[in-house]
Amino acid sequence: MADDIKAAAQVARQAALQLSQSSEEERNNALEAIAQALVANQDKIITANTRDVDTAAKRVAEGKLGAPLLARLKVDEAKLEGQIVVGVRSVASQEDPINKTLTAIELDEGLDLYRVSVPIGVIGVIFESRPDALVQIACLCLKSGNAAMLKGGSEALYSNRILAEVMIAATAGLPGIPEGWMHLLEAREEVAAILNLHDLIDLIIPRGGNELVQYIMSNTKIPVMGHADGICHVYVDKDANLDTAKRIALDAKTQYVSVCNAVETLVVHRDIADDFLPVMIKTYRDAGVEVRGDASVVALAENIVPATEADWGTEYLDLIVSIKVVDDLDAAIAHINTYSSHHTDAIVTENKQTASRFLQGVDSSSVMHNASTRFADGFNYGLGAEVGISTIRLHSRGPVGLDGLVIYKYVLEGNGQTMGDYAGEDGKKFTHKKLDAVWAPKK
Amino acid sequence: MADDIKAAAQVARQAALQLSQSSEEERNNALEAIAQALVANQDKIITANTRDVDTAAKRVAEGKLGAPLLARLKVDEAKLEGQIVVGVRSVASQEDPINKTLTAIELDEGLDLYRVSVPIGVIGVIFESRPDALVQIACLCLKSGNAAMLKGGSEALYSNRILAEVMIAATAGLPGIPEGWMHLLEAREEVAAILNLHDLIDLIIPRGGNELVQYIMSNTKIPVMGHADGICHVYVDKDANLDTAKRIALDAKTQYVSVCNAVETLVVHRDIADDFLPVMIKTYRDAGVEVRGDASVVALAENIVPATEADWGTEYLDLIVSIKVVDDLDAAIAHINTYSSHHTDAIVTENKQTASRFLQGVDSSSVMHNASTRFADGFNYGLGAEVGISTIRLHSRGPVGLDGLVIYKYVLEGNGQTMGDYAGEDGKKFTHKKLDAVWAPKK
Repeated sequence: MADDIKAAAQVARQAALQLSQSSEEERNNALEAIAQALVANQDKIITANTRDVDTAAKRVAEGKLGAPLLARLKVDEAKLEGQIVVGVRSVASQEDPINKTLTAIELDEGLDLYRVSVPIGVIGVIFESRPDALVQIACLCLKSGNAAMLKGGSEALYSNRILAEVMIAATAGLPGIPEGWMHLLEAREEVAAILNLHDLIDLIIPRGGNELVQYIMSNTKIPVMGHADGICHVYVDKDANLDTAKRIALDAKTQYVSVCNAVETLVVHRDIADDFLPVMIKTYRDAGVEVRGDASVVALAENIVPATEADWGTEYLDLIVSIKVVDDLDAAIAHINTYSSHHTDAIVTENKQTASRFLQGVDSSSVMHNASTRFADGFNYGLGAEVGISTIRLHSRGPVGLDGLVIYKYVLEGNGQTMGDYAGEDGKKFTHKKLDAVWAPKK
Repeated sequence: MADDIKAAAQVARQAALQLSQSSEEERNNALEAIAQALVANQDKIITANTRDVDTAAKRVAEGKLGAPLLARLKVDEAKLEGQIVVGVRSVASQEDPINKTLTAIELDEGLDLYRVSVPIGVIGVIFESRPDALVQIACLCLKSGNAAMLKGGSEALYSNRILAEVMIAATAGLPGIPEGWMHLLEAREEVAAILNLHDLIDLIIPRGGNELVQYIMSNTKIPVMGHADGICHVYVDKDANLDTAKRIALDAKTQYVSVCNAVETLVVHRDIADDFLPVMIKTYRDAGVEVRGDASVVALAENIVPATEADWGTEYLDLIVSIKVVDDLDAAIAHINTYSSHHTDAIVTENKQTASRFLQGVDSSSVMHNASTRFADGFNYGLGAEVGISTIRLHSRGPVGLDGLVIYKYVLEGNGQTMGDYAGEDGKKFTHKKLDAVWAPKK
């Protein structure tokens, strides 16, 4: 099996080199062909998906799988045409992320240096049991000129298989689109195999739970871009508008409880705790949220579960919130920098200077002022679609769209210059003038 | 020892958080204080360096170290004032890489999203036996708001120790500059210790030989930015100006033979091999270069060492060149993409379309047309100074200057918006309008 995967990765490597040469038009044509093929093969796709959903439904009934998985797994006509196909065309309509001149500088007369965006190469993506994720991720890779090796959740086995078949068939033989640009992995052992291929795969993007991400990071030399946890905070400052604070704290916890940008801990300034917390706790309880809190919170209301040290570092992904009372802004920032997973943290305050200190001081990929943490998302951020949310501190941070799937190369255009010309005291001098020029391939 | 290193890394982590809040003026003042302290402590520095140089000279005499190391190791008054101190002030004079608004977009009226550059955090750098490298790298980290943990070559032990002492003392207590922003590691075992600290250290930059880089990549979960080899190529096309080709091929091989951007393999189009190679081989031999070649080259000249498969993948770093004759451009690109270390590769041709195909098709961090591979360098590229050259395909590629030491955070400024406002068919819609605005801290 490892040999098969290596062979597929070698094909993907070659495909990536070819795909990096394709034109924007060729890549967009391929995306449109995929959109049309998904519609044309709708019946086959829904039949395969029904098989997955039926199996999963049995396992839900047996208590072996959570019920929310069924909704994420299911593909019907409305989801296929209304979301998946629309998503493919939306990726196609985005600006081309590659072959962009990022900077241009004259080193000397007739010696011009360009930094030009290029695809990363071969990207391995390991994702959860949503068949629409397969289509979205493969299309983002194709648009950005990257070859993709994809492994979906086993619950979506038949759905992923037919979707990959349809997409590969739709792009076969199209100008500029090499065979092997997309490869589907099905067995769990295949994940272990690709993690060893650091000479062939440039980046791994895990989209899944903490355990999966930790496993991957510990078992590969390939760079990993992703996030492990979403331990997000809302800090309600002493200068907050308490109605705004209530609405944001409620939305951030309950608007979609099982996602990574939902809030887990509310941090509250001591000066407004007496006014704010009784109202907030009632609001949470009316919405079915269990409230845990430190000693100050326990003293303020009845039936508060005392929060333990473990609570501050827990991603509940459930209708539970922990509340911490702090003496000042510095204590709030210190608590958040200690326990946050550096995903998304928000402050509610009418004091602009306090907000600014929070936004600068909190070391997270998204920091927000008077807005819900739930906004941290690639679609909301105008990225069109996202391959995931990154909490690493290199390359891309926060929601990652097409521009997170590219890197650059330097292109130097000269007319025979040698380094010897510039050596020594009498050597020529560099001018280092910024240029407005753009580098483009000559046809 | 591992506990001490962990404690130092924890201090560095806190220092990084504080340093990220410092103003440009505070960081520039600290750099100027370093420049002045280096001049004021010149005698102490030269005395310590003489101790290192004397020890190294004995080992050179015993044949245990290469002679070129002595020149790199030595710090005299001219090098200290003329290069090292000038370098510190040059870093200070660069544009501030942090707190720059990279993009700004209105998500909706009163809901504005900014992408703002911030430091990476704590950077571990492991570098060769050049004391000036310590000063340069620490100053690049300071300018970009990063804390630095530095390990220099053991041959420079006393030089590095006094330089670090002087720099730390010069910045102690300065406004905005936290204690522990710079930490010097001295023992080899300390390198192993920092490689385990992936929760505290964000990036490792190795500057050294292939063996060191491979060791580091295999022994850490921390992202590693660097290059292992410099196997660079010059391709002489059939449409090359042969005089230009000769000058570039000679310069790229001999102008500075032991550096990573020197050429190792010359690739020559068959159509001009008969005209070009006898002249080129003579030119190389006159410069003391040993020529190895494939069967075509062996047939063209006398005393050519036949190149083996191993030659194509070898970084000689010496007066040796291998020559490969190819049938066409595609074969040249294929050879280079197979054997290049993706550092720097150049084409010599007067045909712009051929050049364009080469520049697009060769998958290296720098690709050049009619210029010597020796230009691939941070100073030459106008980056001011470089922390190293990257052949990874994420974050930074090619020579890495200050802008490779930063990442970004998203800052969202709202006035109470919740995600619930935007949910469902009747929800508010995002506007996603590009803004010209810049996010800046409120004082």
